[in-house]
Amino acid sequence: MTATGVLLLSCPDQRGVVAAVADFIASHNGNIVHAEQHTDDVEKVFFQRVEFEIDGFDLPRDQIRAAFDSVASRFGMTADLKFTDVRPRVAIMASKQPHCLFDLLTRWRSGELPADVVAVIDNHPDHADLVEHMGVPYVHLPVTPETKVAQEAKVLDTLRSYDVDLVVLARYMQILSPALVEAFPARIINIHHSFLPAFIGANPYRQAHDRGVKIIGATAHYVTEELDEGPVLDQEVTRVTHRDSVPELTRKGRDLETIVLARAVRAHLEHRVLVYGRKTVVFS
Amino acid sequence: MTATGVLLLSCPDQRGVVAAVADFIASHNGNIVHAEQHTDDVEKVFFQRVEFEIDGFDLPRDQIRAAFDSVASRFGMTADLKFTDVRPRVAIMASKQPHCLFDLLTRWRSGELPADVVAVIDNHPDHADLVEHMGVPYVHLPVTPETKVAQEAKVLDTLRSYDVDLVVLARYMQILSPALVEAFPARIINIHHSFLPAFIGANPYRQAHDRGVKIIGATAHYVTEELDEGPVLDQEVTRVTHRDSVPELTRKGRDLETIVLARAVRAHLEHRVLVYGRKTVVFS
Amino acid sequence: MTATGVLLLSCPDQRGVVAAVADFIASHNGNIVHAEQHTDDVEKVFFQRVEFEIDGFDLPRDQIRAAFDSVASRFGMTADLKFTDVRPRVAIMASKQPHCLFDLLTRWRSGELPADVVAVIDNHPDHADLVEHMGVPYVHLPVTPETKVAQEAKVLDTLRSYDVDLVVLARYMQILSPALVEAFPARIINIHHSFLPAFIGANPYRQAHDRGVKIIGATAHYVTEELDEGPVLDQEVTRVTHRDSVPELTRKGRDLETIVLARAVRAHLEHRVLVYGRKTVVFS
Amino acid sequence: MTATGVLLLSCPDQRGVVAAVADFIASHNGNIVHAEQHTDDVEKVFFQRVEFEIDGFDLPRDQIRAAFDSVASRFGMTADLKFTDVRPRVAIMASKQPHCLFDLLTRWRSGELPADVVAVIDNHPDHADLVEHMGVPYVHLPVTPETKVAQEAKVLDTLRSYDVDLVVLARYMQILSPALVEAFPARIINIHHSFLPAFIGANPYRQAHDRGVKIIGATAHYVTEELDEGPVLDQEVTRVTHRDSVPELTRKGRDLETIVLARAVRAHLEHRVLVYGRKTVVFS
Repeated sequence: MTATGVLLLSCPDQRGVVAAVADFIASHNGNIVHAEQHTDDVEKVFFQRVEFEIDGFDLPRDQIRAAFDSVASRFGMTADLKFTDVRPRVAIMASKQPHCLFDLLTRWRSGELPADVVAVIDNHPDHADLVEHMGVPYVHLPVTPETKVAQEAKVLDTLRSYDVDLVVLARYMQILSPALVEAFPARIINIHHSFLPAFIGANPYRQAHDRGVKIIGATAHYVTEELDEGPVLDQEVTRVTHRDSVPELTRKGRDLETIVLARAVRAHLEHRVLVYGRKTVVFS
Repeated sequence: MTATGVLLLSCPDQRGVVAAVADFIASHNGNIVHAEQHTDDVEKVFFQRVEFEIDGFDLPRDQIRAAFDSVASRFGMTADLKFTDVRPRVAIMASKQPHCLFDLLTRWRSGELPADVVAVIDNHPDHADLVEHMGVPYVHLPVTPETKVAQEAKVLDTLRSYDVDLVVLARYMQILSPALVEAFPARIINIHHSFLPAFIGANPYRQAHDRGVKIIGATAHYVTEELDEGPVLDQEVTRVTHRDSVPELTRKGRDLETIVLARAVRAHLEHRVLVYGRKTVVFS
Repeated sequence: MTATGVLLLSCPDQRGVVAAVADFIASHNGNIVHAEQHTDDVEKVFFQRVEFEIDGFDLPRDQIRAAFDSVASRFGMTADLKFTDVRPRVAIMASKQPHCLFDLLTRWRSGELPADVVAVIDNHPDHADLVEHMGVPYVHLPVTPETKVAQEAKVLDTLRSYDVDLVVLARYMQILSPALVEAFPARIINIHHSFLPAFIGANPYRQAHDRGVKIIGATAHYVTEELDEGPVLDQEVTRVTHRDSVPELTRKGRDLETIVLARAVRAHLEHRVLVYGRKTVVFS
Repeated sequence: MTATGVLLLSCPDQRGVVAAVADFIASHNGNIVHAEQHTDDVEKVFFQRVEFEIDGFDLPRDQIRAAFDSVASRFGMTADLKFTDVRPRVAIMASKQPHCLFDLLTRWRSGELPADVVAVIDNHPDHADLVEHMGVPYVHLPVTPETKVAQEAKVLDTLRSYDVDLVVLARYMQILSPALVEAFPARIINIHHSFLPAFIGANPYRQAHDRGVKIIGATAHYVTEELDEGPVLDQEVTRVTHRDSVPELTRKGRDLETIVLARAVRAHLEHRVLVYGRKTVVFS
């Protein structure tokens, strides 16, 4: 796998955008290895992800984005440039439940996630030993209603001291304050244990049981200030029956949570996600 | 397929129920061909479906239910007895959209539904010709806000005149009045075009699009007085992406609606469903 | 929905293709409304589907393909140009089972398929009445082992006389001879009632039952001379259990067959499919 | 969770079995908490799983099975009696790939598996550290074609010395010899990385890629002497597209393997599986 550049673009829909972007790459002797686009016909917004080889590109990396400004400004584009050999720095925040945390760590150790997991922040002490054994710095930051403000300040300090690009809430079970959310816009991914927008809030498996649904789900979304209302990255579901008690729904749901959070984190880390309004474009 | 009897039972959970029911069948020289049970450990309610051969049973059909009263009264049971060669009489109510209506009719014609479709009630005239061609009486009962009360009276008359056991709302798109709902308790099945309880009410595909979900669904439920709150019979879902506009969600959703409504109707007609509170037990 | 042009392209993977195609459209004052590409990194083949507005394009329709030859020849491209307001002519071939036939006809009548169904060819007489009632010419061509050669000659005559673009085998249950297959390369779609390559050949539901699988499937594929070996367009599956007898597998499978055949036919009719070797690229 | 007894029964289908079993439990003051049955109408075999409370049962545990012989012999039954508070002893065999191994260990540590993991046998040394850190004895038994006979003897010794009830091949990647398989009939569970019977043998993801399928799968099955032909416990699938290269199929498949192996192991450990011929009955 040689390194590539990834342009994530959005702009008002208009003629000639595709050609202009392709020409920019071609004119610098680049080669597009993957391109995908989407037009929201209602909002009239154009989105594109263009992945191109850096080898042979006739500009040094640090001049590409500036050079692209000629195209971006012409079309009123928001443009983000990433390089696939620059590994994002990820912090995982966990609580008592281990399944999402250890799943992500196992994937990371086996090379499946294109990122560096630089810290685990945990408000329960249980996982310290195993996390550290896996070679990841472990920061224990317990929280109570009384200490929440102080604890969040420490969380923010920790995230900054580790220079974190992405925060993953692996069943963290605490509602983040607006200050923390604003510090990482579209860079905090949460897993909610329901098929949103069904069963917002606490105890979604109990809610699902009480309603008697025949399918349960899990939703990975970016965290915004409104609880469980952030842009959805991915969802997954599984069938259940009248036999499934709340503990059984919880157990079945854990597998959904694990899978869907990993998929969402991977999509983000591969620079395949664009956020607009409360929605996402997730390129394949 | 020889005819069988089906006992649908529920009672407070207690010792000896399974043995008492099995003994009743065995003592009359019956043979259980299928039995399934469920205990709600929270509500402490026991449910059972027992299917047994009629051939060789030493009581005539019309005396079995009364004879079973000795067991039923001992355990405080609600007991319902059905025979699989007595075909329920079904009315389908439809509106402009044809997919659920014609799917059900095609299944019925090919012998897949153990029932007689005795009437189609439609508030749009479009499907008269094809329905009648398929040999089903077609009753056109248009409705406006002004004529709703009178139209519902005619609907009820029609259902009664055809001696209907089950009403299937095949995208009927009208909210039934309490009087009509009460006349057919747990005997009106509706298909709602969302994964309930998400997107209750009108335009669920638009709601789904606005929320940016990655999975859409459909829900078959018994109709109760509260809109979209009746006991869920079955649900189905499919993945969608940012590419799917509202018309595309609608088209994909139609396939879900068709499948899940047919499955729910079939479960009801095979006497596999018990309703309690706002939930169902659907035996396999 | 205004008409658009669709270019389906494939060529050896090389630099500058994307830019050249985009430039061609832009240079003629065209507007790309959707573009999707794929590179097979093993075979080093590039594939692209480009959909562009015809309104405003500065060439008349019948000159576009020739004008594009400058691009196509430069890159060694295979290029196919379609217009979305030219409706393909479809013939459906059926046998005794009605589910796929009537599903496709219902979709067609409701405007879901961008095509004209110009004929139904059937080797059983059962569906004549309903097909004709739906306004589609019905051609009854019964077949026996002895009359197969003559019957296929009539099939071919019929397809030609109706100027058919796509043949859909809706559970036709006869193996077509090489002559017929060759006359419609990548233009005959079959539904096989298994998850290919499992259970090739006859009685796949019985094979599935004997093997004790927990999931069954259906596969839509282009017909080639080798039985059940043609390029796969789409597949779908559903869970089954030990309870499912062969008739129940058959019933559950019918829903899969119906859905997956309709999806595959739709993909073909929307010009989203490219075939190479025994594989397909199906753009979204 | 109080302890229960589980009877797993099979016998030729005949009248009165259900009543006789229920009477046996009731006559000893037992209470059936769950019962499920199945009749194979083709083979004419009856299967049942009956779970009953031990508290209050008027026989000591070690006399129940002998007392049940009166029923078993009358109906020609094969009968197996388990107690849910007797935890099966499980050995996991692994190779280089960690995903199934660590998933099972994580589930076991969180209390999800009703079993004791008593040993990990590994032919690669990589996982020693983490396995031992999790508190499980780790036995490194490397294997080459030349040492295979000797290594298998050591494997068998190890399994016996740990008094193992169930062997789980967590992507072990070695074909077991008949001697080892015979020592654990229906007690070795393997995960095969395809949707069996498609893609038997080596490199199923490459085979799937070459065939161009649109869905891939994984299959958990009991190991028998015939490669990949043992009774299927569970299967799972996921959609793929032309975009998925062999490494991507492999990555997506890992999630399937993990989930389906865990589900199958759990079903076995909960005494919900009966094997007959090359099939399984898996009660819910």
